[in-house]
Amino acid sequence: MKLRLGMIGGGEGAFIGAVHRIAARIDDEYELVCGAFSSNPEKSRSSGLSLGLPQNRVYNSYKELIEKEKQLPADERVQVISIVTPNHVHFEPTKLALENGFHVILDKPMTFSLAEAKELEKTVKSSGKLFCLTHTYTGYPMVKEAKQFIKSGKLGAIRKIYVEYPQGWLSSFLEGGENKQAEWRTDPGKSGIAGCMGDIGTHAFNLSEYVSGLHVTQLCADINIVVEGRKLDDDGAVLLKYNNGASGVLTASQIAAGEENNVKIRVYGEKGGLEWQQSDANTLQIKWLDKPAEIWRTGGSYVSSFASHNTRTPAGHPEGYLEAFANLYRNFALSVKAHIEGKTAEPEWLDFPGIEDGVRGMAFIENVIASGKSEIKWTKFNI
Amino acid sequence: MKLRLGMIGGGEGAFIGAVHRIAARIDDEYELVCGAFSSNPEKSRSSGLSLGLPQNRVYNSYKELIEKEKQLPADERVQVISIVTPNHVHFEPTKLALENGFHVILDKPMTFSLAEAKELEKTVKSSGKLFCLTHTYTGYPMVKEAKQFIKSGKLGAIRKIYVEYPQGWLSSFLEGGENKQAEWRTDPGKSGIAGCMGDIGTHAFNLSEYVSGLHVTQLCADINIVVEGRKLDDDGAVLLKYNNGASGVLTASQIAAGEENNVKIRVYGEKGGLEWQQSDANTLQIKWLDKPAEIWRTGGSYVSSFASHNTRTPAGHPEGYLEAFANLYRNFALSVKAHIEGKTAEPEWLDFPGIEDGVRGMAFIENVIASGKSEIKWTKFNI
Amino acid sequence: MKLRLGMIGGGEGAFIGAVHRIAARIDDEYELVCGAFSSNPEKSRSSGLSLGLPQNRVYNSYKELIEKEKQLPADERVQVISIVTPNHVHFEPTKLALENGFHVILDKPMTFSLAEAKELEKTVKSSGKLFCLTHTYTGYPMVKEAKQFIKSGKLGAIRKIYVEYPQGWLSSFLEGGENKQAEWRTDPGKSGIAGCMGDIGTHAFNLSEYVSGLHVTQLCADINIVVEGRKLDDDGAVLLKYNNGASGVLTASQIAAGEENNVKIRVYGEKGGLEWQQSDANTLQIKWLDKPAEIWRTGGSYVSSFASHNTRTPAGHPEGYLEAFANLYRNFALSVKAHIEGKTAEPEWLDFPGIEDGVRGMAFIENVIASGKSEIKWTKFNI
Amino acid sequence: MKLRLGMIGGGEGAFIGAVHRIAARIDDEYELVCGAFSSNPEKSRSSGLSLGLPQNRVYNSYKELIEKEKQLPADERVQVISIVTPNHVHFEPTKLALENGFHVILDKPMTFSLAEAKELEKTVKSSGKLFCLTHTYTGYPMVKEAKQFIKSGKLGAIRKIYVEYPQGWLSSFLEGGENKQAEWRTDPGKSGIAGCMGDIGTHAFNLSEYVSGLHVTQLCADINIVVEGRKLDDDGAVLLKYNNGASGVLTASQIAAGEENNVKIRVYGEKGGLEWQQSDANTLQIKWLDKPAEIWRTGGSYVSSFASHNTRTPAGHPEGYLEAFANLYRNFALSVKAHIEGKTAEPEWLDFPGIEDGVRGMAFIENVIASGKSEIKWTKFNI
Repeated sequence: MKLRLGMIGGGEGAFIGAVHRIAARIDDEYELVCGAFSSNPEKSRSSGLSLGLPQNRVYNSYKELIEKEKQLPADERVQVISIVTPNHVHFEPTKLALENGFHVILDKPMTFSLAEAKELEKTVKSSGKLFCLTHTYTGYPMVKEAKQFIKSGKLGAIRKIYVEYPQGWLSSFLEGGENKQAEWRTDPGKSGIAGCMGDIGTHAFNLSEYVSGLHVTQLCADINIVVEGRKLDDDGAVLLKYNNGASGVLTASQIAAGEENNVKIRVYGEKGGLEWQQSDANTLQIKWLDKPAEIWRTGGSYVSSFASHNTRTPAGHPEGYLEAFANLYRNFALSVKAHIEGKTAEPEWLDFPGIEDGVRGMAFIENVIASGKSEIKWTKFNI
Repeated sequence: MKLRLGMIGGGEGAFIGAVHRIAARIDDEYELVCGAFSSNPEKSRSSGLSLGLPQNRVYNSYKELIEKEKQLPADERVQVISIVTPNHVHFEPTKLALENGFHVILDKPMTFSLAEAKELEKTVKSSGKLFCLTHTYTGYPMVKEAKQFIKSGKLGAIRKIYVEYPQGWLSSFLEGGENKQAEWRTDPGKSGIAGCMGDIGTHAFNLSEYVSGLHVTQLCADINIVVEGRKLDDDGAVLLKYNNGASGVLTASQIAAGEENNVKIRVYGEKGGLEWQQSDANTLQIKWLDKPAEIWRTGGSYVSSFASHNTRTPAGHPEGYLEAFANLYRNFALSVKAHIEGKTAEPEWLDFPGIEDGVRGMAFIENVIASGKSEIKWTKFNI
Repeated sequence: MKLRLGMIGGGEGAFIGAVHRIAARIDDEYELVCGAFSSNPEKSRSSGLSLGLPQNRVYNSYKELIEKEKQLPADERVQVISIVTPNHVHFEPTKLALENGFHVILDKPMTFSLAEAKELEKTVKSSGKLFCLTHTYTGYPMVKEAKQFIKSGKLGAIRKIYVEYPQGWLSSFLEGGENKQAEWRTDPGKSGIAGCMGDIGTHAFNLSEYVSGLHVTQLCADINIVVEGRKLDDDGAVLLKYNNGASGVLTASQIAAGEENNVKIRVYGEKGGLEWQQSDANTLQIKWLDKPAEIWRTGGSYVSSFASHNTRTPAGHPEGYLEAFANLYRNFALSVKAHIEGKTAEPEWLDFPGIEDGVRGMAFIENVIASGKSEIKWTKFNI
Repeated sequence: MKLRLGMIGGGEGAFIGAVHRIAARIDDEYELVCGAFSSNPEKSRSSGLSLGLPQNRVYNSYKELIEKEKQLPADERVQVISIVTPNHVHFEPTKLALENGFHVILDKPMTFSLAEAKELEKTVKSSGKLFCLTHTYTGYPMVKEAKQFIKSGKLGAIRKIYVEYPQGWLSSFLEGGENKQAEWRTDPGKSGIAGCMGDIGTHAFNLSEYVSGLHVTQLCADINIVVEGRKLDDDGAVLLKYNNGASGVLTASQIAAGEENNVKIRVYGEKGGLEWQQSDANTLQIKWLDKPAEIWRTGGSYVSSFASHNTRTPAGHPEGYLEAFANLYRNFALSVKAHIEGKTAEPEWLDFPGIEDGVRGMAFIENVIASGKSEIKWTKFNI
């Protein structure tokens, strides 16, 4: 049984919409049945047709989609809606979808503001529907292995976390040009109060909390607009304190000229440390105080069920970004199916980012921007 | 418009069948409409149903599939048939499919013997149908870039090629156990005259000819059965001579304990060299005699159309084995559609392995095994 | 002509004393002629004898060394004195040596306090003698290349600097045990007000200013004592502002369990960035916004005179830590000889860390510790 | 006590002579007391003086050196003679030195021919003097660790060896130009019957036998002169059979354009494999069939006495080519001193390449060149 999937946003030319659709297809758990692909009805229509959808399932707006789909017979009606619009069009369609009985997959960051995030949290709870936020990096099997490894206690208590996310693509002033990605991501009206920190800082933040199992309690941020004329931050560094007393450093930059997208995390405990980076995504390095470091690999016979469940091929067949993204879609599908069938979902299926991650991510954005403006060193992580 | 895809072989538990199906789905160019997934009708049926096919499109045998599909209306009938059976069941279904008007995607090595390969070559030509052989590694964008780079002449005349394919998974005697992969790949009745050389040696051979644009003319092989009791080679090394006078070394092993699947190629010309390996698949290293080496990357703004056409995401979002495989499926689909529509296919679409690669691959197997038994150093590459 | 070298500190069992002696020998510019190797006369004597020194040139104290050597004939008397004692015995012997006409090589951090550092600066200037501070990492040829590359302007204006120095050897409480290194480095009476920040943080700080050619103007530090019972910091992270408006992040830790000593720097400008790390010391990566990254290598035909002057072997013969250290000794020797002979030293010879680096390093220590205690975010870099 | 060292060859401008002298100095076990640095008396003299030798210890010829030194008092006379001339001037000075009571360190390959090598073997035995052949790569601590690891049996019986030595510096025709290295290394009158195979093939051969503890028994070679006009081989590949039934592949090339000097070895046994390469010389990778690969590092607390004895600095302070070379000199010095003092040398001291390695190396050269010319596949390894 495939789940019936609808999409809001992600029309022609959108990077992340196409990624979501590939992710949904890889494991064959979904069938795309409808969409409102653009706020421009013409563009929505042409996008839908080129995706092979029938005319009557391509809508002019997300409101129309939700309204009309709701009226379809239960066995035809969309079940899961993916929302891949820019940040300022996250909250309303998500809320509407949930309230009308649809499960939702939403791109990050979750909302435009923390206030919206908290309201959405209530909606998710009251709706009883499932919700997934696409923090892709937690979908990598070796990131999951890192989390499980730390959880096992083998590294002892965690003491230090370094997480970094360097990009260089906004090194020049691209605003006002043809780069659509640059356009909305640097526009406070569409992105919210943060640029780099919202776009990739939240990924780094989420990764650090996911892997370590810890929560940030205080932070101290240096937030910069480096490129002249830009309206939102394009670079930042944040000192962190976690709830167990560990400290951390998060850096995110979009002006690290020459860097691609190599998000990386290192975590150190009393007995050893671990390191993962996207450019070598199928490797998890485990380092020890007093014995040789170990190279754990996707597909290894020794990895946990959380890693092996999220891998399709034998060791040595590299799986990448799209597969990590697909893991979110697949685990969400397995969980939704269990929900529909009234069955208990396996822990591995439920291991996808959800509403709590979203609220914490939005709190991160508000706190980190506040700290950036503050003259006081430590800002409490308010939520 | 999606192409209607059928599958022969690849039932439950088969590794490569699942890989083919993911590859077919990633770019949404195909719809799976029928299959004969196993020579065991029960297994074929249950495989087909779990894939969501209607009962009447799941067949008991490949013969039935071809016969019955042929009788369906043209706009319903399967268009492309993927054949993912063990080697000894390659030739007949492929021939039958082509002769009955279907395009074919076939897993490598192409046939059980060179004689079959040559006959198939005739069938492909006489049928006028398109044919793709899934040498996955030539689907990687940076492998394509390597080929284009050499073709451009920037390295000067090619002098030396090293290609290696180390695996360790057959280090122990797995035959007779539960490992199905080991079972048929070490069985002369199913694999043919070669084990390691047929399974992965052909990939290495194909990669070296594809990237360099050269043809092997002579070879000298050391072919070994290392694990006691095994019936086919599990290790080998081959000295090569190419048609421009260059020399090469090909190694393939399935008893390199601890190795996963890191196929790697290095090619050297008069002015520089290049290096690619699957474990870092999105990188192509270009080395120069007198200036710094360069790191070319999937998604880079500077890569050729052959690389960018085969990439879905921006630089720094690693694409892997499944995407490389999907590139074969997508390019084949684009070519088949052009064929159907009577249009001219772009050179980038036609850049998939075909019947000539298959014939040369089977010639490699026969020549390399002959050389392994010969006391003479150089064996002419007969075809 | 070899320079006559004396040594203060560095008796048997001392790590850094042996390193200094190897560094002095590698390029044959020095002859060890005397020493006061320990404050324990017995140990000084036995160390000197095992080094092959005559009894009358092995002294009981640095004071005796300076006093007695001064009375020797000019062509026999020591010319350069290496001081390799713990931090609290840096200032006095250095001052005494300079005032008595000897050139000095001193281990880092320069003194016990900034006040001492400033006084030493005056002494160096008034003495007219040469002074070298052994910030080893600036001795690596590819670090020098990085500096020259940035100086050339090819990266445009510098915007961001990341420098990190992770170690794990102080992850446990080693104080009071047999580890002499741990003993004095964690003792405020011997190390001064900083532990980790003085020991390795100063290296990272110096590296960032050397490579970038910039000066830190403000900082914001998170300074931690992680291991219970420890008296000095063993971990820290620092946000930095440089005098051109660039920002930076410096991390140094001795509780990053499993890490060895992989000091690493990344610098980004408007047009590209560069990266160097000690674990791959002979490589400098240059990254560009719009073309392939480049791998610059020690010994490459294309490197600057500053790199080639500091390299002994052809490309591909790795030179390491001891050679980097030897570069400081050799360049200092060449400069001292030019000084003695009244000649002009080449710019490449003068490219060793000196008194200004030492003063700034001590200012870093005082400012970073002050910032660690401050509730205000930014602390001005006072000097 | 330092050993008194003399040198034959290695005058100004010679690469390897300078390397030998640095190697001799690093650990302070030798004092250079005399030399005949060139067959040109003028050049010998100026080289000696610039090295700080007294006029009367700089000789016009190796014969003069040996004759005159022999007449000096025992406590002044040279003890160890380093011979660093081109290959055609290896045999005679070595024989003469040994016969006159001096210990000898000789650069590789050992002699001009196998016949000379065998005669030298007799001389070494009859002289009772110690002899070291400078196969540098066996001096690396992690190469020694590799040998010990295999010896321990942890990998099980060895099955496969890959050893490679790619260089690119002879990609063009440099003969007749100013490159002295190219001049003699491509001249059959100075190098002997082999070019690339003698210069670097012997290193690779020696490395494979040293690490594995096995002996080659048969080989099959493809030997090429790639650059037009060259008189000796500049490229080759060799299939190998070892005395335990294992097989191997050795490649050596000096026309692998863009390659520096990255000699690399991989050895596979029944249970796992290991890998070492010079470009990451302080790492030994251990790979397992069924558990994570391990990264063994120079200076690690867990390495054998053979590795730790040959390391000067803590983990994370990279030691390189010169230190590996120095390990040969130091171990030879420790062995010579034990010999002089009538004491038993430790196994770690005796772990340097000697006369047997030299004879086998010359046999490799003769057999590999013979095989290159043979039309028969396998050539017995005659000695």
